[in-house]
Amino acid sequence: MSVLLVGTLDTKGAEFAYVRDRLRAAGVPVIVADAGVIAPPAFTADVSREDVFRAAGASYESVKAAADRGKAIELAAAGAAKLAAQLHKQGRLSGVFGMGGSAGTTIGTAAMRALPVGVPKLMVSTLASGQVKHYVGTRDVMMMHSVVDIAGLNRISRAVLDNAANAMIGMAKRPTPPAPLPEGKGESGKEDGGANSSADRPVIAATMFGVTTPCVEAARTVLEAAGYEVIVFHATGTGGRTMEGLIRDGLVAGVLDITTTELADELAGGVLSAGPERLTAAAIAGVPQVVSLGALDMVNFGPYDTVPERYQQRRLHRHNPTITLMRTTPEEMDQLGKVVAERTSASNSPTCVMVPLRGVSAIDAEGMPFWWPEADEALFQSLRNWIAPYVELTELDLHINDPAFAEACAQKLLDMLKGRKVPD
Amino acid sequence: MSVLLVGTLDTKGAEFAYVRDRLRAAGVPVIVADAGVIAPPAFTADVSREDVFRAAGASYESVKAAADRGKAIELAAAGAAKLAAQLHKQGRLSGVFGMGGSAGTTIGTAAMRALPVGVPKLMVSTLASGQVKHYVGTRDVMMMHSVVDIAGLNRISRAVLDNAANAMIGMAKRPTPPAPLPEGKGESGKEDGGANSSADRPVIAATMFGVTTPCVEAARTVLEAAGYEVIVFHATGTGGRTMEGLIRDGLVAGVLDITTTELADELAGGVLSAGPERLTAAAIAGVPQVVSLGALDMVNFGPYDTVPERYQQRRLHRHNPTITLMRTTPEEMDQLGKVVAERTSASNSPTCVMVPLRGVSAIDAEGMPFWWPEADEALFQSLRNWIAPYVELTELDLHINDPAFAEACAQKLLDMLKGRKVPD
Repeated sequence: MSVLLVGTLDTKGAEFAYVRDRLRAAGVPVIVADAGVIAPPAFTADVSREDVFRAAGASYESVKAAADRGKAIELAAAGAAKLAAQLHKQGRLSGVFGMGGSAGTTIGTAAMRALPVGVPKLMVSTLASGQVKHYVGTRDVMMMHSVVDIAGLNRISRAVLDNAANAMIGMAKRPTPPAPLPEGKGESGKEDGGANSSADRPVIAATMFGVTTPCVEAARTVLEAAGYEVIVFHATGTGGRTMEGLIRDGLVAGVLDITTTELADELAGGVLSAGPERLTAAAIAGVPQVVSLGALDMVNFGPYDTVPERYQQRRLHRHNPTITLMRTTPEEMDQLGKVVAERTSASNSPTCVMVPLRGVSAIDAEGMPFWWPEADEALFQSLRNWIAPYVELTELDLHINDPAFAEACAQKLLDMLKGRKVPD
Repeated sequence: MSVLLVGTLDTKGAEFAYVRDRLRAAGVPVIVADAGVIAPPAFTADVSREDVFRAAGASYESVKAAADRGKAIELAAAGAAKLAAQLHKQGRLSGVFGMGGSAGTTIGTAAMRALPVGVPKLMVSTLASGQVKHYVGTRDVMMMHSVVDIAGLNRISRAVLDNAANAMIGMAKRPTPPAPLPEGKGESGKEDGGANSSADRPVIAATMFGVTTPCVEAARTVLEAAGYEVIVFHATGTGGRTMEGLIRDGLVAGVLDITTTELADELAGGVLSAGPERLTAAAIAGVPQVVSLGALDMVNFGPYDTVPERYQQRRLHRHNPTITLMRTTPEEMDQLGKVVAERTSASNSPTCVMVPLRGVSAIDAEGMPFWWPEADEALFQSLRNWIAPYVELTELDLHINDPAFAEACAQKLLDMLKGRKVPD
């Protein structure tokens, strides 16, 4: 098992040699892959740039001749991803380590995103103190901010790279088995059943937000006591997308979708949208689902001054210095009811929408900043109008975080799952 | 030396206990600090929540009574930062480990940002696949995406936390000395002069971008040969801000500000603005500087579809799938010339602006996508109009990446530095 070091050995050769030497000195085997295009590599790689571009179905010579930097990076990223997936399949990979600026980060994280959760992934990047969504995606990538440019070894870059190398050494020397992944059963590693009895228990996927935590935690307790393993996804956009992938791939026995708030961000342009495929996978995979309306009272933005101008007259709430919430209006709630109704009505597996009539989040309760019964009622009425007759709509005169509501949701899902064949 | 584990032991108690046990099993001492507010902690912390809020000048009881979640998080973050800084000052810290959602990430990274570069910092976060600028800031934080919510131990969360714990074990067991930091000389650790001869060499700070790499690399070679340590900052907004902080704190002997592109992002609303303090620190600190106009031909945006609507008719270039560049116009270049002139003219230390008349970036050259001589000329003319008579303006009939231009910039800075007292 080796750590794959992948990057451009022309511009970052000295830095890659430095990290490689530290890993080797600690007894960690290394495979270095070169994805550089411009100048010759600073040292001979184990996987040459010719091989990297060949893996992407291109030739190094033609890429170099084309002199299109964007295209070269795209192909290098595709080649690195192919290479990493192949090494992993052969059981040869104990981790992937990348280092670079925009090109190096695009290439390194492409290799990382090709691997299941559980394979160590560390990217030292000049861009790690900004928007990293496109680099990290739905994987367990560690993005480390390089502070200074990766251009020469100096007192700062050495301190950063020493820590990065040590972190990778720690992960590579004590490998943990890869966990099941949204990529399908074929690629997912199996845990040792003896060491982790959870491996045999069927999985329930649940969605949570800070403001729906009491509900999800209480429901989780009930479901775990009934013999299920509950995997909770934070409704951050990425969280919802990851869950939908897991469901589509047939890895989930049941869905407890308490927190559908990402639909509000999708509708109003918030920062935590999970895209139009949210709340669609259970129908596609034929998985029973209990759906609720958690945090549909809010759309998420970053710090207060990043809220779009068109929303500055709206009801806003500073959740903390980095997160600002916007209350959804009756008009938006009306539309959201239709979205929930349409997407759940697409399922012909057991589906139930649970309605908490006294409020959909911790701050949508009497005396709290997002309490707005007319808006909530618009959501509820829209659901009643649009939902298909074969989808169960259960209205409870409870707040979403009332223990009785959580209990009812969990029990409903257990009833649906009773007697169903558990997926492998 | 211990690793500080900081987070909310009410909602994430089981997960913190899991990581703590893994660190201890590997022989790494741990200090656990509780920043929870709502329910009692799952286990007794080494630093209680009472102590954390006291460090922020507040009392736990009053915070709990106020029931203002945003305010509680703000105070917990301030307390955690105080605590971490104090432990570090006492030489007791081998790293900081955080874990959480939006609250936990705000609190954990506040503690991390209070520490110099070189102290291991690992934040496992549900928000690590998004905009992390406000969490990472100018520090060497590792942000690890938790993939699933940190709510229970299951096959996915265990795989993620195992790697996180192993990474922290690797970093804590092989500590590297902290590097000098933007926080001022008082807090910066000193390297072992015997092990790293670079510790004695005066520092030159330089700014680079992919499209100015040949210039900066060539200049670096000249300066290093002359006995300086060159620290290169990637012009990502954070990079420029970090450099300005380092200069202000008196840690830099000279500045080679080849790549002032962040000013274009500041002007036009690009994603890599370094804010209005860019290009001001050398004047404040009285440090000699050579300034050039690198990459002022471009404003940075994310993926193509994120370019603001008002700019969609502009000359755009897909640098790669995640970065789109916009060409600055003659009007913008005229304004940028004034900005560079004003900020450099504020200095009464030796200052020289070097003008590459044949193009300011790799793609601002004949036959390349951002070649627009009229726009560049607007920049140059504006500089001539506005610059103070005591600032040297040197025009060279060269492209910025011509080796002769790099040589001239480096030589100019060496001339300025000759005979000056080197800062301690």
